[in-house]
Amino acid sequence: MPLVVQKFGGTSVADADRIRAVADHVARTRRAGDDVVVVVSAMGKTTDGLLRLADDVSATQPGRELDMLLTAGERISMALVCMALAELGVAAASFTGSQAGILTDTDHTKAKILEIRPSRLTAALAAGTVPVVAGFQGVSTDHDVTTLGRGGSDTTAVALAAALQADRCEIYTDVSGVFSTDPRVVPNARRLPRVSFEEMLEIAATGGRVLALRSVEFARNHHVPLHVRSSFTWEPGTWVTEEDPTMEQPIVSAVTSDASEVKLTLTRVPDRPGIAASLFRALADETINVDMIVQNTSHDGTTDISFTVPRAELPRAKKATADLLVQVEASELLVDESVAQVSLIGAGMKTHPGVTATMFETLAKEGVNIQMISTSPIRISCMVEVDAAERAVRALHDVFGLAG
Amino acid sequence: MPLVVQKFGGTSVADADRIRAVADHVARTRRAGDDVVVVVSAMGKTTDGLLRLADDVSATQPGRELDMLLTAGERISMALVCMALAELGVAAASFTGSQAGILTDTDHTKAKILEIRPSRLTAALAAGTVPVVAGFQGVSTDHDVTTLGRGGSDTTAVALAAALQADRCEIYTDVSGVFSTDPRVVPNARRLPRVSFEEMLEIAATGGRVLALRSVEFARNHHVPLHVRSSFTWEPGTWVTEEDPTMEQPIVSAVTSDASEVKLTLTRVPDRPGIAASLFRALADETINVDMIVQNTSHDGTTDISFTVPRAELPRAKKATADLLVQVEASELLVDESVAQVSLIGAGMKTHPGVTATMFETLAKEGVNIQMISTSPIRISCMVEVDAAERAVRALHDVFGLAG
Repeated sequence: MPLVVQKFGGTSVADADRIRAVADHVARTRRAGDDVVVVVSAMGKTTDGLLRLADDVSATQPGRELDMLLTAGERISMALVCMALAELGVAAASFTGSQAGILTDTDHTKAKILEIRPSRLTAALAAGTVPVVAGFQGVSTDHDVTTLGRGGSDTTAVALAAALQADRCEIYTDVSGVFSTDPRVVPNARRLPRVSFEEMLEIAATGGRVLALRSVEFARNHHVPLHVRSSFTWEPGTWVTEEDPTMEQPIVSAVTSDASEVKLTLTRVPDRPGIAASLFRALADETINVDMIVQNTSHDGTTDISFTVPRAELPRAKKATADLLVQVEASELLVDESVAQVSLIGAGMKTHPGVTATMFETLAKEGVNIQMISTSPIRISCMVEVDAAERAVRALHDVFGLAG
Repeated sequence: MPLVVQKFGGTSVADADRIRAVADHVARTRRAGDDVVVVVSAMGKTTDGLLRLADDVSATQPGRELDMLLTAGERISMALVCMALAELGVAAASFTGSQAGILTDTDHTKAKILEIRPSRLTAALAAGTVPVVAGFQGVSTDHDVTTLGRGGSDTTAVALAAALQADRCEIYTDVSGVFSTDPRVVPNARRLPRVSFEEMLEIAATGGRVLALRSVEFARNHHVPLHVRSSFTWEPGTWVTEEDPTMEQPIVSAVTSDASEVKLTLTRVPDRPGIAASLFRALADETINVDMIVQNTSHDGTTDISFTVPRAELPRAKKATADLLVQVEASELLVDESVAQVSLIGAGMKTHPGVTATMFETLAKEGVNIQMISTSPIRISCMVEVDAAERAVRALHDVFGLAG
């Protein structure tokens, strides 16, 4: 019997009505002949509410206790989903991360999955029971409750699909799939019926918020076909799968934008070996995620080094570069918080070198100045002034004919 | 170092302020030189809220899932208490029922504790960490999450105190101890500085709502001294301990009343062996808790049998007696829902036979009709008309000189 993992996000289980709708869909999937493992997030804004409660109680919030607190959320939603399934005559049983055998490291609030021992889930499936598993949580090698951090429930779903050798993993959310760009910015954005893992990784990494990067990486590495779809319309959404070498790839699939990073520039850095290395070692030591890096050609023996970091990491990035600024007296740190990255993604780009030129021409025609550029085989990203980002997205979406 | 188990009920951890007050008290207890194990209930009305949510979602509520749902409550409160302790510089770690080693049977929503394996708690104590344990919950022999039913958190606290050989178990609540009667009915009711386990059992069984019967039984069987006190005033409350044979016992300690039961009477039951047995077997088979039973002297070969059952069990009790009514055509089932039980409790009663007479005289003087009577060595209970119960309590409290 085919096995499908169905993951329902917070908006999909936000209230009693939504939970009954989810149960109805799970029951329908079973009647259609599939075995189902359900993974749920906490209801709606439960997690935010619990975090506010913690803030009210204490400024000190040990990770172990934060994890204990937050895991209450999925406990509630999964028990309710099981009750709704029982009401429809479908035998179901809820499992915490620990009961589902999701073993993690001890890095509280952002634990990594080490291993999955799903014996209780396979036993439930064999007994004809639908396992309903708490997303986002696991149990550490120290037997403590852990959470997986951002996108944790997607990761749980994909990891279980891999461990159970499921035929597919369906990620239900409040949008109907992955779009050629943000439909709020470009109303005629097209839902993509299919993207490759590589494209999805680039989309997730450059501002597409539908799937967490980490879960896509996991799915690619374990060959788990994903289907991203809506729990409100239940229509078919976007399949994320291996690239099909027999099919021609779209040159450009999607345009994304991301204003979550800030640009830092170190000016007048002596252009000699080791300076850049010591800068990025200092940032790495602080576990700051550096994204784009640009170093200008040297003139008069010095150069400017620009790089981007997540907005939240700016204070730590400033601190990490402080030593270097002392070493190199002439240097200055410039911070630009008014930037956004606009990216073009397409698996066919590899074989179509004209794309870059068209992108730059289009931005020039719109009067959008390009501050930094970075590329991968299937992506071109330009850092632009934040107020120009939406204009850039619309123009690029138009010129590459992505409209629905 | 002395070890104390401190249990905080729902009102004691109802909001951020109360949780900080609890943490402050625990920190203070440690500074005074005691080791502390904390047991918490869910915050305020959390459990009621979760039950309402379940009702909104589904009429079918499997016990296993109800337990999974409800145990979210203590998870939240215990994590928050740990955070508040951390803020005060006190190392603390939360433990679910399962992590605390509370093993139960598989009887969901009203599981019984089979065994306690507190190795994680003793390790935490040895490391100077305050264990904060979820009350009301355990893990079954099937590795499923269970709850202990009514009064479950008190039972957790007492059971842990017994397993850890604690020096005392403090039960913090929203009243300042056990009173000679309900202070809402008799304003000059006196707080009892000390009652024996036996008295406390009778008080709990006859309407005193401060401690759950079950936790008192556990404390008596395992010789755990209890201290019932307020988490609002923090003043000394009532000690519940073994009877001290060297001290004279108060003749009457408390007057209680309880309107939670209804009276059923089977009229004109043939007075021959086996009839009463088959009635109470039928009720037992339906697990209906019969409390008082009175059988009148037979006349004309038939008798009336009256008994009381909890109000909630009335429909099932009616059903269980239906067969017997068919067998004995002449018989009729009368139900009186307007009754209350008024009880007099005192360890010294055993040696003072005049108490019963004084009680009956007092009720007669007040014009209160006694419908049924039951006694134990340290208790006399009378079933009276519900509207007369408060008058009876006031008169008895007065005549036995219990006022503060």
